[in-house]
Amino acid sequence: MRAIDIIQKKRDGHELTTEEIAFIVRGYSDGKVPDYQMSAWAMAVYFQGMNARETADLTLEMAKSGDTIDLSPVAGIKVDKHSTGGVGDKTTIALAPLVAAAGVPVAKMSGRGLGHTGGTIDKLEAITGFSVELTREQFFAQVNQIGAAVISQSGNITPADKKLYGLRDVTATVESIPLIASSVMSKKIAAGADAIVLDVKTGSGAFMKTLEDSIALAQAMVDIGTEVGRNTIAIISDMDQPLGLGIGNALEVKEAIETLRGEGPQDLEELTLILGSHMVVLGGKAKDEVEARQILEQLIRDGSALTKLKEMVKAQNGDASQIDHPEKLPTASKVVEVTATQEGYVTAIQAEEIGIAAMTIGAGRETKESVIDLSVGIVLRKKIGEQVKVGEPIADLHVNGDDAGKVSTAMDRVREAYQIASQPAEPKPLVYAIVTKNGVQRF
Amino acid sequence: MRAIDIIQKKRDGHELTTEEIAFIVRGYSDGKVPDYQMSAWAMAVYFQGMNARETADLTLEMAKSGDTIDLSPVAGIKVDKHSTGGVGDKTTIALAPLVAAAGVPVAKMSGRGLGHTGGTIDKLEAITGFSVELTREQFFAQVNQIGAAVISQSGNITPADKKLYGLRDVTATVESIPLIASSVMSKKIAAGADAIVLDVKTGSGAFMKTLEDSIALAQAMVDIGTEVGRNTIAIISDMDQPLGLGIGNALEVKEAIETLRGEGPQDLEELTLILGSHMVVLGGKAKDEVEARQILEQLIRDGSALTKLKEMVKAQNGDASQIDHPEKLPTASKVVEVTATQEGYVTAIQAEEIGIAAMTIGAGRETKESVIDLSVGIVLRKKIGEQVKVGEPIADLHVNGDDAGKVSTAMDRVREAYQIASQPAEPKPLVYAIVTKNGVQRF
Repeated sequence: MRAIDIIQKKRDGHELTTEEIAFIVRGYSDGKVPDYQMSAWAMAVYFQGMNARETADLTLEMAKSGDTIDLSPVAGIKVDKHSTGGVGDKTTIALAPLVAAAGVPVAKMSGRGLGHTGGTIDKLEAITGFSVELTREQFFAQVNQIGAAVISQSGNITPADKKLYGLRDVTATVESIPLIASSVMSKKIAAGADAIVLDVKTGSGAFMKTLEDSIALAQAMVDIGTEVGRNTIAIISDMDQPLGLGIGNALEVKEAIETLRGEGPQDLEELTLILGSHMVVLGGKAKDEVEARQILEQLIRDGSALTKLKEMVKAQNGDASQIDHPEKLPTASKVVEVTATQEGYVTAIQAEEIGIAAMTIGAGRETKESVIDLSVGIVLRKKIGEQVKVGEPIADLHVNGDDAGKVSTAMDRVREAYQIASQPAEPKPLVYAIVTKNGVQRF
Repeated sequence: MRAIDIIQKKRDGHELTTEEIAFIVRGYSDGKVPDYQMSAWAMAVYFQGMNARETADLTLEMAKSGDTIDLSPVAGIKVDKHSTGGVGDKTTIALAPLVAAAGVPVAKMSGRGLGHTGGTIDKLEAITGFSVELTREQFFAQVNQIGAAVISQSGNITPADKKLYGLRDVTATVESIPLIASSVMSKKIAAGADAIVLDVKTGSGAFMKTLEDSIALAQAMVDIGTEVGRNTIAIISDMDQPLGLGIGNALEVKEAIETLRGEGPQDLEELTLILGSHMVVLGGKAKDEVEARQILEQLIRDGSALTKLKEMVKAQNGDASQIDHPEKLPTASKVVEVTATQEGYVTAIQAEEIGIAAMTIGAGRETKESVIDLSVGIVLRKKIGEQVKVGEPIADLHVNGDDAGKVSTAMDRVREAYQIASQPAEPKPLVYAIVTKNGVQRF
């Protein structure tokens, strides 16, 4: 078998065999297939695509290229959740304790972030003392004992995906649905989940800008899950504005806590309940989403979800008192209002712009070496559909330090991110569609 | 400017600017753009193509990546000729003296060969003492004095093309018309010709298997010539069987000599006259092809063309007596007949198979390190349209040594190359079309 023949076969639009996919992925992983052949292959895949079988084969090959986590020491059906990435997305911090409170074990590995704000792991570190590094044994024991643990991805997980992603990133081959789908799913499969709930973002602030592309990506990922025997469903949710109000690490933890108290922003609460309901059903703790939602709403009302978060924080050496007193979380020294320069109705908030503004004031990493300021960020005061007057605050910047230039740049970005029109826009749904192995349900 | 943006722009089907093409070609040549980006770019070009302007820019950029030959010390309009490569193609050896005899200076650099048989340079070395290495000054002086010189490509000609071709060869990106066209034309332009006649082969033994692909390639090359101000025309000629009868280095020189004597195989003589007529017209020595052909036919009849070959051979230290006595050229020790195992009419002769058979018995290089036996090869005794009986010879193998296995393998290949049917096939033209800047003329 030769790499060039596999590249040519894909280039000419033919289906690759399981053996051919294994050959090219393993060869690339081992350094026998050079970068220049792999990038030509990725470009051929960009143009010719891959069918569900090929995509599943690629996913499995990448999943087994490194360490795989065997979650069998954890009792119950382990349900993982993944978001394709949005601005202000703190759902995992609320979902892990909420779903655990419903009896579904959450053994979750998360990542750090580059750009916008930190990843879930960075955000959790805003809780004083919170340890994201547990041994495999501590991790399993914690999930068995209290039902949830969120730790940093450790070890050598999917090195083939890591290598391929790095190559795609510099060869204009990122935007390929089978390649994106296999990259996400390989990590989920290596992480050992029995079932997976995907939150595929759509809209101006998402990787996938159009609903149809988002559905196609969701479909590809659900197909992979189905092919490899992991029950998978995908929610297509809105990213035409940031999720919730807070963007920034401690600010997002605070909002997750509010959500578990039943006092969070409406969109964040709703998305948390929708994703959580699906996790509870897949985890076998409710017969359908309606029942699951009732369970979750009850767990918020009676304080069990919040208690579970405190248990998790405590188990991971965090300061649980900060959950009851979020004002004890790291706080920025100044709050600067961003005011509207135009009157009318908010019709869109470019999430990506808001994310970059947050990064500018220190909430995210510009390069891998950057140090995040966990206390800073942005809190939106107006969202889509709300009316604003000239001079009225639309957002607050939570900042530290004296760099007036950065603050002014961030303010400009926030203002530009807000689209204000004389008439309110048609309201858009939070969730556009649900994709399961049985098909696509649109709302 | 960043390579990734240029890859993405081409991937998305947009036209690249002159500056973008210069950036990627120079960057690749300098080692600043890595192989893996260049191969992704080549694959994007494979799928999205390039227009005439982009292709011309790429060609010029590659042409000036290394040494360029300034032919101005040679008086007159210098016309170069290039063939896309066929089996049994010895036209250059006949054309150079023939056209020079008509007053068109031929300052030609040729290459060695890999596969089938040697290249023109290898073939010329079958003439005892023939020197293919001249200094630039000797080269110009010889052309000014006797009108023709054929030397080995020397110096650092189009290194960017060389590097890119090497990469395309291992990344399944060879078969792209703008990339093939720019590769050929960059070398011709760097070699300094004022005008170029291209012989684009078509058919089973050619790189381009279909007439339409061959015309498209010819069109792309003529477009480049037009864009860069080098008068270029292309002949689309048949490669559904080898050209002429001899395949092998000395055997081909012999056949070129016969052609200059007016005793060559009909197809070789005809193609030589067609290509030559166009060269004479482009060289300004005849008003049209009809007049040019009359001139060339006269030069063959009166012996001037053969005399010119002898002058050229002598000037390059070759044994000119071998031109008058071709039996003094290197001769194989044995001639083995290949007989037909089937009766009927020859309908096709797979040129590539014949080429490989010739290589098997030593006429071509299997690897760059192989040493060619200049005396061996194959002489066809039947061509398309001829009738054969069982046991009748269809070809002769001219062999040296005692490797019966190789001879038997070559015999089998020759037999397989011959397609014999009960009815003769419809005769095919030798030349299918001529492509000029004014369009395509089909026959």
